[in-house]
Amino acid sequence: MTYELYYWPGIQGRGEFVRLALEEGGASYRDIAAVPGAHGGVPAILRMLEARGERRPPFAVPVLKAGRTLIAQTPNILLYLGGRLGLAPGDERGKLWTHQLTLTALDLYVEIFATHHPLGDGYAYEEQKAAARRRTRDFLKVRLPKFCGYFERVLERNRSHRPWMVAARVSYADLTLAQLIAGLTYAFPRATARTLRKRPRLAALHDAVFARPRIARYAASGRRRPFNNEDLFRHYPELDR
Amino acid sequence: MTYELYYWPGIQGRGEFVRLALEEGGASYRDIAAVPGAHGGVPAILRMLEARGERRPPFAVPVLKAGRTLIAQTPNILLYLGGRLGLAPGDERGKLWTHQLTLTALDLYVEIFATHHPLGDGYAYEEQKAAARRRTRDFLKVRLPKFCGYFERVLERNRSHRPWMVAARVSYADLTLAQLIAGLTYAFPRATARTLRKRPRLAALHDAVFARPRIARYAASGRRRPFNNEDLFRHYPELDR
Repeated sequence: MTYELYYWPGIQGRGEFVRLALEEGGASYRDIAAVPGAHGGVPAILRMLEARGERRPPFAVPVLKAGRTLIAQTPNILLYLGGRLGLAPGDERGKLWTHQLTLTALDLYVEIFATHHPLGDGYAYEEQKAAARRRTRDFLKVRLPKFCGYFERVLERNRSHRPWMVAARVSYADLTLAQLIAGLTYAFPRATARTLRKRPRLAALHDAVFARPRIARYAASGRRRPFNNEDLFRHYPELDR
Repeated sequence: MTYELYYWPGIQGRGEFVRLALEEGGASYRDIAAVPGAHGGVPAILRMLEARGERRPPFAVPVLKAGRTLIAQTPNILLYLGGRLGLAPGDERGKLWTHQLTLTALDLYVEIFATHHPLGDGYAYEEQKAAARRRTRDFLKVRLPKFCGYFERVLERNRSHRPWMVAARVSYADLTLAQLIAGLTYAFPRATARTLRKRPRLAALHDAVFARPRIARYAASGRRRPFNNEDLFRHYPELDR
């Protein structure tokens, strides 16, 4: 089956967690944002979101179309692909653990977005800079070390799976966390370097994911969008203390 | 099996989504926060969170203990219970759809918390009142109608399942959404009344859930904590325009 991924063009955003799973899993897929002409791009995404005949409409992208089924919500898509692409264990406990780690990583993602948009995306960054500074201060001091300390602990307790969190094979939780570390390194190079210095297992996980042959090929292909300040990870030097 | 639910005492919080599922499903469970003595309350919760021997440690509560397995992350716990307690369809597409709706509802929950704590919980409400006013303005004007319009549309398109979203039986997605409507009605009575006037199916879903015999019994038992301003839903009249 050829999957279709619907996500906004020009940014990695939440779509990137899905792309990494599709790439690592060797899936055949069409990235609708990159399809030229009337069948791709924003018009195709809006048509899918607004289709009146859809009994199970998604709230937002990313959406994965599998046959005629639309699957939305990043962790839900990953849950689905995990089973299909061998990116999660087959037993129920292993599946739940992989999902739990991924949900926790995506909670961190929401907090990272909130550093530059604490008042939500109804206001531009320039309209909420003072609030962003205060939120980021707490994030870098309290929240980021708490999350990173947690994931480092998970890796430490499962050292037989090194460098992965869940099992002897890479899982979608590993891919998701590696993407977060990559994004944090773009957004907060100073604070992230400081944080990773004390968490060698996290740094090793990131490097191991991006050294995977399929992921490395994808990153070199030009299809992985570069980080940029229209995206959910943003680099504002004034926030990176 | 008797489940154990670990969640902070005194508030509903995220634990309440799990409690509603356990109650509606007729599960046997112990609410650790309410257990007197050394085996309950905050000390028992901290012991569980900090146990060094746990190979799959949770990041935070709520945590459901099922046998010897700890399951964390609200949507993950609901995914697990959905299958066990008959609160989700048995087929894969139905399971994914239930999970997708629940994840979307819980995204709304995060945005509701952000109305009074846009800078995160590192600062008291009193330290972020101006930011809270701005965030809430956008929330009530843009985000709340968007989410409510979405769920109303889901209900409309699945009218054969009335009053439920997923199937002819109540699902954990329905319980979750009903709890959100209850909390919104506490936090923003004026704005929520205005919003629900145009969304009769949402209001009917809420009423149908809280009229379920087991849920009604639970609400009348005194075990359901009353809403209060230490909780994630908070009522600040100055925010409810």
